[in-house]
Amino acid sequence: MKILVINPNTTASMTEHIGKAARAAASAGTEITAVNPVHGPVSIEGYFDEAMSLAGLLDTIRRNPDCDAVVIACFDDTGLDAARCLTDKPVIGIGEAAYHFASMISNKFSVVTTLARSVPALEHNLSRYGLDTRCARVRSSEVAVLELELPGSNARHKISAEIGLAISEDRAEAIVLGCAGMASLAADLATEHGLPVLDGVSCAVKLAEAMAGLSIRTSRLGGYAPPPANKLDGAFRTGV
Amino acid sequence: MKILVINPNTTASMTEHIGKAARAAASAGTEITAVNPVHGPVSIEGYFDEAMSLAGLLDTIRRNPDCDAVVIACFDDTGLDAARCLTDKPVIGIGEAAYHFASMISNKFSVVTTLARSVPALEHNLSRYGLDTRCARVRSSEVAVLELELPGSNARHKISAEIGLAISEDRAEAIVLGCAGMASLAADLATEHGLPVLDGVSCAVKLAEAMAGLSIRTSRLGGYAPPPANKLDGAFRTGV
Amino acid sequence: MKILVINPNTTASMTEHIGKAARAAASAGTEITAVNPVHGPVSIEGYFDEAMSLAGLLDTIRRNPDCDAVVIACFDDTGLDAARCLTDKPVIGIGEAAYHFASMISNKFSVVTTLARSVPALEHNLSRYGLDTRCARVRSSEVAVLELELPGSNARHKISAEIGLAISEDRAEAIVLGCAGMASLAADLATEHGLPVLDGVSCAVKLAEAMAGLSIRTSRLGGYAPPPANKLDGAFRTGV
Amino acid sequence: MKILVINPNTTASMTEHIGKAARAAASAGTEITAVNPVHGPVSIEGYFDEAMSLAGLLDTIRRNPDCDAVVIACFDDTGLDAARCLTDKPVIGIGEAAYHFASMISNKFSVVTTLARSVPALEHNLSRYGLDTRCARVRSSEVAVLELELPGSNARHKISAEIGLAISEDRAEAIVLGCAGMASLAADLATEHGLPVLDGVSCAVKLAEAMAGLSIRTSRLGGYAPPPANKLDGAFRTGV
Amino acid sequence: MKILVINPNTTASMTEHIGKAARAAASAGTEITAVNPVHGPVSIEGYFDEAMSLAGLLDTIRRNPDCDAVVIACFDDTGLDAARCLTDKPVIGIGEAAYHFASMISNKFSVVTTLARSVPALEHNLSRYGLDTRCARVRSSEVAVLELELPGSNARHKISAEIGLAISEDRAEAIVLGCAGMASLAADLATEHGLPVLDGVSCAVKLAEAMAGLSIRTSRLGGYAPPPANKLDGAFRTGV
Amino acid sequence: MKILVINPNTTASMTEHIGKAARAAASAGTEITAVNPVHGPVSIEGYFDEAMSLAGLLDTIRRNPDCDAVVIACFDDTGLDAARCLTDKPVIGIGEAAYHFASMISNKFSVVTTLARSVPALEHNLSRYGLDTRCARVRSSEVAVLELELPGSNARHKISAEIGLAISEDRAEAIVLGCAGMASLAADLATEHGLPVLDGVSCAVKLAEAMAGLSIRTSRLGGYAPPPANKLDGAFRTGV
Repeated sequence: MKILVINPNTTASMTEHIGKAARAAASAGTEITAVNPVHGPVSIEGYFDEAMSLAGLLDTIRRNPDCDAVVIACFDDTGLDAARCLTDKPVIGIGEAAYHFASMISNKFSVVTTLARSVPALEHNLSRYGLDTRCARVRSSEVAVLELELPGSNARHKISAEIGLAISEDRAEAIVLGCAGMASLAADLATEHGLPVLDGVSCAVKLAEAMAGLSIRTSRLGGYAPPPANKLDGAFRTGV
Repeated sequence: MKILVINPNTTASMTEHIGKAARAAASAGTEITAVNPVHGPVSIEGYFDEAMSLAGLLDTIRRNPDCDAVVIACFDDTGLDAARCLTDKPVIGIGEAAYHFASMISNKFSVVTTLARSVPALEHNLSRYGLDTRCARVRSSEVAVLELELPGSNARHKISAEIGLAISEDRAEAIVLGCAGMASLAADLATEHGLPVLDGVSCAVKLAEAMAGLSIRTSRLGGYAPPPANKLDGAFRTGV
Repeated sequence: MKILVINPNTTASMTEHIGKAARAAASAGTEITAVNPVHGPVSIEGYFDEAMSLAGLLDTIRRNPDCDAVVIACFDDTGLDAARCLTDKPVIGIGEAAYHFASMISNKFSVVTTLARSVPALEHNLSRYGLDTRCARVRSSEVAVLELELPGSNARHKISAEIGLAISEDRAEAIVLGCAGMASLAADLATEHGLPVLDGVSCAVKLAEAMAGLSIRTSRLGGYAPPPANKLDGAFRTGV
Repeated sequence: MKILVINPNTTASMTEHIGKAARAAASAGTEITAVNPVHGPVSIEGYFDEAMSLAGLLDTIRRNPDCDAVVIACFDDTGLDAARCLTDKPVIGIGEAAYHFASMISNKFSVVTTLARSVPALEHNLSRYGLDTRCARVRSSEVAVLELELPGSNARHKISAEIGLAISEDRAEAIVLGCAGMASLAADLATEHGLPVLDGVSCAVKLAEAMAGLSIRTSRLGGYAPPPANKLDGAFRTGV
Repeated sequence: MKILVINPNTTASMTEHIGKAARAAASAGTEITAVNPVHGPVSIEGYFDEAMSLAGLLDTIRRNPDCDAVVIACFDDTGLDAARCLTDKPVIGIGEAAYHFASMISNKFSVVTTLARSVPALEHNLSRYGLDTRCARVRSSEVAVLELELPGSNARHKISAEIGLAISEDRAEAIVLGCAGMASLAADLATEHGLPVLDGVSCAVKLAEAMAGLSIRTSRLGGYAPPPANKLDGAFRTGV
Repeated sequence: MKILVINPNTTASMTEHIGKAARAAASAGTEITAVNPVHGPVSIEGYFDEAMSLAGLLDTIRRNPDCDAVVIACFDDTGLDAARCLTDKPVIGIGEAAYHFASMISNKFSVVTTLARSVPALEHNLSRYGLDTRCARVRSSEVAVLELELPGSNARHKISAEIGLAISEDRAEAIVLGCAGMASLAADLATEHGLPVLDGVSCAVKLAEAMAGLSIRTSRLGGYAPPPANKLDGAFRTGV
């Protein structure tokens, strides 16, 4: 089975980090292709970056048809709906994957993400998925996405402090880490705080394997109906 | 006062149609600039078109700084959140404008839009704005956006039939027309059916005038915080 | 255009204050008539006052037919539904006006009102409009309505302190001032706290101009259907 | 125990009808006083009538202090919140009483009320109580309130037909009759349709007995805090 | 009238305590039978205990057919839905009874229960009843159920402290005590804190009397349809 | 990896059917143990059967500790919360599994289950999971559970007819089959109707593999905290 894991930002070191996390989660026999668009924002922090990454993200899906499922490896689930129009293969966002898993191992979970500016977009997604009723709070650690790539930053410390508050103030029973770049921290933080700490990359890879393994496809009726051929051609021909 | 009205698709005849509706609604002393991006989909029908129009839409806002407010003249309120990061001038979507107005003249309203594939995106927006509790149903008339530009189509007939159903089945007290291209039909349909029929273009122009007239600006805290300068530069320099 | 601005309490100095705020917001060419009922409570603070002001409020609308739109200038949107039965001209409450505007310039807003006893009525309204999902919290400053009219009160200080808490605790991106008597404080408080601070009187005047300018009328179907003539006659003949 | 049952409209024959239903429901030892205001609408059908009946309703409560609980015998629960500020004795609306009971004997219930114009006010109440999630639909039978008082009307037939639709279309497991004037029809309609059919008058009398029997009082904190004495005096002195 | 009050745990002293509270609340002429199952958990604290008490609870209902209504005297309303399939007599849970009453005497109430592990089950119930919109917060006092039976425990102190927080932090206008074993504390705590403090046992007894007094029965349509005879026989014959 | 698949009813032929479906879905290397309790209802159709199957279900989990994850193979997700207290291994209900998957391949899905009496329990679950906002409608086909085991029944025809209605009336984009006994019908019905048709057994097996593969465990904080040892011992020693 082949899973296309797309980092929708253009920071190659982060794509590598994500690819590593994805491969660690994948079953034997699953091949992970971790890619990022050539053009677009270097990190996705809020609505504007999200919007500016969409054309590159969708073009990346179009250029990589040889896969069984797609994982969008940005925690705001960038372009999820549009991607599901473009292909009927399962498309899984790392945000939604972690939320769905968290809702099956806890009564309430909290999210710890990067910057305050990203919080409303995540709250919006949770509401759209229906899972806002299961999320106690989306917290920001005020760690920028690319700070997670820096050795010597005190990112881990700030994130751990927010997890502590999520337990004491939100009565969270599980934690979802709200950035693809936090994947490598999950295990340690779980041990430290004594509750499940979920990383979206691994959850999404497993959900992609699960759906592709059952040959489940995205519906072609209604909102995810494929665009007509002339629109598809036009969309990518102009170099957008 | 200057209002920038952006048709996010690339069909110039529709931009002209929208500009005409906007000018008819504008107060004396308001100057309407109706524009569309050079690249992007010819019509916006569903999630994919919406995603592919975003870069062009945002670039159009950036290239037209000489205005007091911005109207996004596509009924799915394309790129509304991202646009509010890009400028602190009021940015009003024609969908939201019509929903807000309808909720102040009726207990429940229904929306009559174009194709079934567009319905989930509109339902999603209504839920995000909080106004899903005020909307009885989003109905599709199965009239394609560009069919509205064709003389001799039976678009008006199909839309009128859906309005009839909205009154009898949904107990709607007002109707919102769910496409910028339907602006010219509102008055006639209101007379025919004996209830308010709202067109988003005129509602949005008036809301934009209202907000700009009060010097109300979009918040710079939280989710609409402006992107850092280097990201803004990068976004548009690559020609995306 | 003529807009009837009704202060539903009987405190003439407050009507004057409101009239002044309304005129400051109105466009050139808009004439503001600011009135209050002869009988009724001197201030509206909670459910009881609201109920006791309704007959006077509705009678005031009936006695002032020469207008294009009506603004109800009490923040609990006193009698809004009943007023919409009485006339098909747009009727706008200052609470709803501010909430709708706030929801278009922020992801979440908080309200700062007068007394704790008024909070549930405002929460009730927000829920009814659908906009409770956009409001982080309704806060009381424990400033009584008429205290706002007193020179030398520390009302401004208390309100400013609550705004500070709304930003730090509620993560509010905008503030709505929850009393008509606070209109003159908005600009200063916005500057002080660095976020939009909305006053309902000006928002409502602008919405009334917008709707009247488009000849939008309240629906006559369903819940806002006009009462039969004999009921209207009876209602006001008995001097209730 | 003494229960004050107030018909907030001024139709004495209906007050008598309601008093009879209340006495039939009351326990031995409970004394029912059924009254109506002198001034106000002859029937309450929608928001306008509701507003115009409030002053009379509240004055009636004030003039009848010798009771242990108050029942507001209009299905839109006219003035419920204001009444709870005026007295700390339990105040029960017949609408809320029936909804609460229905939610404890069925998974979903439907309401069959009088005119379409009354439906939004009832939906609004259900949402406010939280019980909209338990109500499948509020249906109107197009029977005017006073038509229920007329011998020979086909009111019962129309109501029965709507109950049939509530079972087949809404999958309702119980029915709430949505008008005080329908009290005498409940038993027959329950037999005819084979499901519980609740009348609000009897439910409210029993709830009032239950609360008064336990000496439960309305909270004086927050939204139901009593108005200050000078406001109370002022309210009723002016004859409003 | 005969009311069967079932303590679904097997601690006889608690059954006695509950029976006493029920008799104190019951009207003259109401006979209370307080019983508990022979087998099952000694206290019900969370989902597991709840599940393990169901067979005993339902068997107890089956063995006590000589009653007019049933009260389930555990605050998590153990087995309420299943019990309503087993008999068409009114079945009232003490949790729901208190929530319904609290919602008619306050705008918002808080619950103070025993252990943190019980909180999600109560939140779940509130959401199911629709009354989560009326509940500010479910708080745990970290008093175990059986600790309430111990003379000399500081249970009352811990519960009182949580009530204080509910008033100051949740802006609760009324309190619901979240355990049958707290029944005897309600009156004192109400006096101490100056707001209504409701005990579910008394509320449920009164609701049971009210419904049985009106001959209201649980619906036999839909979700509460009785199981077929062979299933009923099988269920209890095997000693499960 | 070993997955324990529990059919909570006592019909062995159905356990076999479920085991077969589970094995068809499982990855190479996953061992499926399909079991059912010795005592309990022969089928689970509604709240009563659900309650009566819990002791047997939980005892089955306790007696089968040698597994990596547990699947509860009844569509009402019998005892899910209690099971999560009993073990920290992932416990997945087939209902929730199918709902979560459906929400990632469609904007809205409908459920087609067996009898009308089962519908409220499923609606209740959907609301609890948050996914009621994603489900258009829960439909009953009026096919009893054990009828699905009978060769020559017209079960398939009835289910297919309901799917047709779900597409035309509910605008469902995907279908969830609401009974473990329908597993073998999914592929054919998907082909017939041209949209995804999900069977919960296969979805749950894949989710169980995914979670166990990532060593994700159920939270031990809050609502899923394990019962104290003496309660566990007591629970199963008495043969309840």
